[in-house]
Amino acid sequence: MIDIKPVLFIIGVLLALLGAAMLVPAAFDALAGHADWAVFVVSSLVTVFAGVSLVLTTRTAHPTSLGLRHAFLTTTMSWTGVAAFAALPLMFASPDITYAGAFFEAMSGLTTTGSTVLSGLDTAPPGILVWRGMLHWLGGIGIIVTSVAIMPMLRIGGMQLFRTESSDNSEKIVPRAAQLASAFGRIYLVMTIACMVLLWSAGMTGFEALVHAMSTVSTGGFSTSDASIGHFDSPLIEMIVVVFMIGGALPFALYIRALTQNHDALWRDAQVRAFLAGIAIWTAALSLWLVLGQDVEPLQAVRMSLFNVVSVITTTGFATADYNLWGTFPFAVFFWLILVGGCTGSTSGGIKIFRFVILVTTARRHLHQLIHPNAVIVPTYNRRPVPEAILLSVLSFVTVFFAVFVILSIVVASLGVDFITAATAVSQALANVGPGLGPIIGPAGNYSTMSDPVLAVLAFAMLLGRLELFTVLVLFTRAYWRA
Amino acid sequence: MIDIKPVLFIIGVLLALLGAAMLVPAAFDALAGHADWAVFVVSSLVTVFAGVSLVLTTRTAHPTSLGLRHAFLTTTMSWTGVAAFAALPLMFASPDITYAGAFFEAMSGLTTTGSTVLSGLDTAPPGILVWRGMLHWLGGIGIIVTSVAIMPMLRIGGMQLFRTESSDNSEKIVPRAAQLASAFGRIYLVMTIACMVLLWSAGMTGFEALVHAMSTVSTGGFSTSDASIGHFDSPLIEMIVVVFMIGGALPFALYIRALTQNHDALWRDAQVRAFLAGIAIWTAALSLWLVLGQDVEPLQAVRMSLFNVVSVITTTGFATADYNLWGTFPFAVFFWLILVGGCTGSTSGGIKIFRFVILVTTARRHLHQLIHPNAVIVPTYNRRPVPEAILLSVLSFVTVFFAVFVILSIVVASLGVDFITAATAVSQALANVGPGLGPIIGPAGNYSTMSDPVLAVLAFAMLLGRLELFTVLVLFTRAYWRA
Repeated sequence: MIDIKPVLFIIGVLLALLGAAMLVPAAFDALAGHADWAVFVVSSLVTVFAGVSLVLTTRTAHPTSLGLRHAFLTTTMSWTGVAAFAALPLMFASPDITYAGAFFEAMSGLTTTGSTVLSGLDTAPPGILVWRGMLHWLGGIGIIVTSVAIMPMLRIGGMQLFRTESSDNSEKIVPRAAQLASAFGRIYLVMTIACMVLLWSAGMTGFEALVHAMSTVSTGGFSTSDASIGHFDSPLIEMIVVVFMIGGALPFALYIRALTQNHDALWRDAQVRAFLAGIAIWTAALSLWLVLGQDVEPLQAVRMSLFNVVSVITTTGFATADYNLWGTFPFAVFFWLILVGGCTGSTSGGIKIFRFVILVTTARRHLHQLIHPNAVIVPTYNRRPVPEAILLSVLSFVTVFFAVFVILSIVVASLGVDFITAATAVSQALANVGPGLGPIIGPAGNYSTMSDPVLAVLAFAMLLGRLELFTVLVLFTRAYWRA
Repeated sequence: MIDIKPVLFIIGVLLALLGAAMLVPAAFDALAGHADWAVFVVSSLVTVFAGVSLVLTTRTAHPTSLGLRHAFLTTTMSWTGVAAFAALPLMFASPDITYAGAFFEAMSGLTTTGSTVLSGLDTAPPGILVWRGMLHWLGGIGIIVTSVAIMPMLRIGGMQLFRTESSDNSEKIVPRAAQLASAFGRIYLVMTIACMVLLWSAGMTGFEALVHAMSTVSTGGFSTSDASIGHFDSPLIEMIVVVFMIGGALPFALYIRALTQNHDALWRDAQVRAFLAGIAIWTAALSLWLVLGQDVEPLQAVRMSLFNVVSVITTTGFATADYNLWGTFPFAVFFWLILVGGCTGSTSGGIKIFRFVILVTTARRHLHQLIHPNAVIVPTYNRRPVPEAILLSVLSFVTVFFAVFVILSIVVASLGVDFITAATAVSQALANVGPGLGPIIGPAGNYSTMSDPVLAVLAFAMLLGRLELFTVLVLFTRAYWRA
């Protein structure tokens, strides 16, 4: 049996920090003279109390000695526990939504998905808006650290490709995670401040700039307006957001390497190249379609295509236009583009670019091997050989990703949701994107009409996707609990 | 460079046989006093002439010495060449359709897909109806032989699991194919006659029974009525068709083993068990939905569900009802069920059940390995260990299948087709099913409104799916032609 005391200890620490963070939106509401400040203060007290209680009752445990198997449970339980408490102020501040809705919203925030059950954002008090932005921001740095410090050690879905020598030492997860959090956190903070200053100077209010900077750099997607970035109707703001969405979707470890060792570390990376090439190709294809098929002016077509392609592929989910209405080709492109995702080791979700690079390499090798059955062909990634075990791991991940997508889309459809809505609600949740397709949850819609069971399934899908599926799925095996 | 003379020789032989076969529909039309007999005779002369010319100009080649690499080209070119000529009478007999339409119809017949561009079948002359049935029937025995005699040797998509000792000897493809064709052909013929006799005695005319027997045992799906099997509105006929659709979707090699060695060879096979379990589960789920959600009477619900689940999962594509209208859950189920397919070594298409069995095994092992990184876990299939190379091969196949599905659905959508129609048109073509979803190509519709470019893409998708993708895809690599 697994000793869950150290797991609870870590969750306790996180809850205490989360509770403290709730004082920020409380301050915003208090300054704005909005009564919701009390909601955040009460939620803060409850959360801090729960966190401190957990810490005190489990303080005899040694979290620094967390083993491999604890890491699965800790990661999954931390994300779930934090979302459960982060939902409290959202529920109390919004009389319309149930706890399921609030939990969905909090999970959507922490997983940097950006799907929302709230509407009327343009007139919402500042506290709730800044809290949603903060959830994105905290979840963003959380996943960068998790994916660099923990996932490679867990060998999930080919993440072992990104192991470093130090990641073999499973005794040191917690100190290493803390060290990485500090290194990445500085870059993340600088990016966020830069984004905020630029958005501010481009015409947003300081408050709008703050919230959007937090949800851009984290590739989250929550906005201060129901019309999302489309509300500002500014090419300059869109350009800034595009740059920082891409910035949030690149591997943060490469930023450090680019700053300290090779200045061209980013441009030489297979994942980064494929990612940028993908953005260029789909932007060009959609622009062409809009110009030829929909009589859109060329510059406007590029502006519309670039923003929405980057928004979906970085899994941010901001919208400037309802691409549901662009015709048959863009609809099909976006249906599948939702699943792709950005680079690993970033804040973006989805299947992720490095897996596509590996899939293409594997398929090529497979074709070559059919012609030359006896040839020994070693697939490579970034000019390094990739062991068979990693290929299998990547292929297993992609196959299970599709399987989960198929199964959950059938589950959501069985709850009475039409197929396009059900399928894209699930795919956007799994890939942590935000909007789906169709009139209900498309870029012009939101999730307010979804029933509680649907919201619960989607929140689970967000968690699954955010933690690379297997971190959560192993907990459902008997072997995990028995061994 | 590849010497294509032996390839052309084999195509020549097949065309000569195809031309001779066209005299059968000619005889049917002549007996019915319909002028179309001349169309078949002329097409027959053209086809026989083309075939004999090819044979005569390439007769110095030795087809018995066909190597591994020739097999890819021969298989792909044979299917394409035969469809190209089989289309001739369809085009000449139907003034409404273009050559693209006729080629689509012929490819749909030979690949036992069953998608049709024709309507008004109920009043069509017998020649064209029997010709469509014959294309299914010939294509059905063709794919059984190809998948047992050729595919395992080509190591395509994990088919090497089904290699026998004799399949290692690539020098003997042609004689072994001929020997297998004769063994399987006898079983296939007996099944077809049994099906025809039963359908006849259940109320069909002799002619209807003949055509439907040919398209049932081949899991094809062409009918003599626009309303498909729904036209007869007979539970008895539906039951007979269900039994023979399943019969056509089981591995034919196991029939021989069951008859000669182990009588329980079929029931002990992992693929057969999973296949029958799948049918039972989805029939039960859909029946439950129809009873609870749509107020359908229980027995009627089972009848509707069983027939349509079996029709789709065996990739036959007969219809008795428009399951588009059954609600959100069945729509989602059918959207994905189209891709599944029956057992390998049968007439059915799709991803195929043995690959799902292997995927589940691999995913389980992957989960187990995450918990016990140092454990050596050997996955098994039918209680035998499966080498890593086969796992990779299966996973590559499934991933490439999905990739082709995604890419072609975007291509068809770019030709102006709405997403549900485009996606299911492609998936049904890849899986050789027949109907898609939506009002246009759903079980109550047909492909007559599709443009020529769309029909060409779909015909290509049928070929890709029928030949397990890689047989065709290797021909597009430079390595194939250079080596």
